[in-house]
Amino acid sequence: MKANAKLISHAPLGALEILTAALAADMHGVNEIILQNLQSEVALIPQVASYLIAAGGKRLRPLLTVASARLCGAADDTCHGLAAAVEFIHSASLLHDDVVDESHLRRGQPSANDTFGNQASILVGDFLFARGFELMVAAGSLEVLKILARTSALITEGEVLQLSLAGNIATREADYLRVIEAKTASLFSAATEVGAILGNENYRDAMRNFGYHFGMAFQLIDDVLDYSADAAALNKNLGDDFREGKLTCPVILAIDAGNAAERDFWRDALLTETHTPDMFTRAQSLMHKHRVFDAVRQRAENHAAQARHAIQQLPPQPLRDQLLDVLDYCVNRTV
Amino acid sequence: MKANAKLISHAPLGALEILTAALAADMHGVNEIILQNLQSEVALIPQVASYLIAAGGKRLRPLLTVASARLCGAADDTCHGLAAAVEFIHSASLLHDDVVDESHLRRGQPSANDTFGNQASILVGDFLFARGFELMVAAGSLEVLKILARTSALITEGEVLQLSLAGNIATREADYLRVIEAKTASLFSAATEVGAILGNENYRDAMRNFGYHFGMAFQLIDDVLDYSADAAALNKNLGDDFREGKLTCPVILAIDAGNAAERDFWRDALLTETHTPDMFTRAQSLMHKHRVFDAVRQRAENHAAQARHAIQQLPPQPLRDQLLDVLDYCVNRTV
Repeated sequence: MKANAKLISHAPLGALEILTAALAADMHGVNEIILQNLQSEVALIPQVASYLIAAGGKRLRPLLTVASARLCGAADDTCHGLAAAVEFIHSASLLHDDVVDESHLRRGQPSANDTFGNQASILVGDFLFARGFELMVAAGSLEVLKILARTSALITEGEVLQLSLAGNIATREADYLRVIEAKTASLFSAATEVGAILGNENYRDAMRNFGYHFGMAFQLIDDVLDYSADAAALNKNLGDDFREGKLTCPVILAIDAGNAAERDFWRDALLTETHTPDMFTRAQSLMHKHRVFDAVRQRAENHAAQARHAIQQLPPQPLRDQLLDVLDYCVNRTV
Repeated sequence: MKANAKLISHAPLGALEILTAALAADMHGVNEIILQNLQSEVALIPQVASYLIAAGGKRLRPLLTVASARLCGAADDTCHGLAAAVEFIHSASLLHDDVVDESHLRRGQPSANDTFGNQASILVGDFLFARGFELMVAAGSLEVLKILARTSALITEGEVLQLSLAGNIATREADYLRVIEAKTASLFSAATEVGAILGNENYRDAMRNFGYHFGMAFQLIDDVLDYSADAAALNKNLGDDFREGKLTCPVILAIDAGNAAERDFWRDALLTETHTPDMFTRAQSLMHKHRVFDAVRQRAENHAAQARHAIQQLPPQPLRDQLLDVLDYCVNRTV
């Protein structure tokens, strides 16, 4: 789930900024709650947590919660606390992912584990998750709690499944889809669904489906960009998934289309501990050869179309169009 | 929080078994819920989780929840799910602690991180925490959720504080007490308080105080045993805290009572990465010299006395006495 990072670092002034501006008062409220809840008498906690959360990020997931709530007619500010909780769940999983993946870069700066150590990242991740849970409880809806609790378990199931499949070239596209559905789309869909619950229950299914397909598209693009992001862009970290042996969609499609020699290459490359730059270049060129990027982008576009279809059930209003622009931006981004 | 491990591995047939037998039907129910909720389509999850949870442990914390609920007159079985949730929170923190502490042994067998790797331990810990959260939500009480959410955050604050203080010989006893209050006593007190809420709100403060002081006594003894456990006992892992540079009560008291040369020894010993067996022997002998073990045990006994006082507010009944016997057993154990 590095996608948000890339998005944030490179977004030109565009759809995301327009939606954030349209919801400026709300996002200010969310931000206040986030900052308040990073506090602890234990100094290391706000230190590590702000390093990740307060420093950067355009807060895509909480933005989805707030946008969905307002779009569905939520009148009060309960959505602020839930949006903050969604960001805390996401941030906790980023902290743990970076330890699990031994990542050294996040949002263009050294990762928290690199800066503060794995121990601090693990424990502060736990803190953020627990604090997010407190924020959800404060919102006072058992229905919402049920969704977010289920989602939290799903995210970790997705992460564990991804870990189990690492280096295994027998992984099928269906397995990959299960992984990204659990680790990414589940939080996007929960973010939009709980927003809808606060506004108008009638739009709950529509907004859940919107979030789900948005999340699927988002992660597919993120996985393409790990092999194909604009080389001139700053802060990128091409090839992380490759070096971690992750069986993402581009890899699976390249293996499927490859001949025996290519499959041998993939098997070796995804299992080895010692990568040379040559190996990554070969991986990229095989993907180009088999037109893998277009194929994955097409899958993302299919999900985007379903997301658009889902949200059409809501009456037209500027916020709906702005949200659709964010979707388009995410699906078409090249960095 | 290795205490439960030691307790479990070495308990002679005694107070703990008697209380468990008295609540056999309940504990069977709790166990069923635990086993059901370890399941996942992702095979690695039940593998790692059962390795820790299903394999061993007498389930002291869930036993406290159930005992407290029945003692306070809870009639239905809502306490089973909450007791399972308490065990899940505890187990999640054990999995993460073992990664943070680089522990190799847990309950007399190789730790989960040793067997399955740090990555699996981190992610499955997250899963257990999220699943515990789902179990709490299913119980349907926002009051209970509030307590357990707050407790989960407190536990991690305690762990982070402990990490921050590692190797710092300026740590005072008050700092240490903050650590164990947060990392251990908070879950004991939450376990008994939520039990009371299910039974009779009037006993809520009494049972919370009982759990709090029980937890403080429990952890003080645990920290003594890391330097003084019966050498003949199986499964023990003396000196873990020492090698991790933890400023536990016995160390703080030994430093306070020591001369300049001794303080130099402690400073070096708690900061070095390379321990010799001699260093641990010297640490133990300094503790003996300054009668540190008796002093810590006296502090534990003071907390036990306050726990006994708190529970006296409930009417006498066999379950109350059995619970007091468990407290006495925990405070007096030598392994």
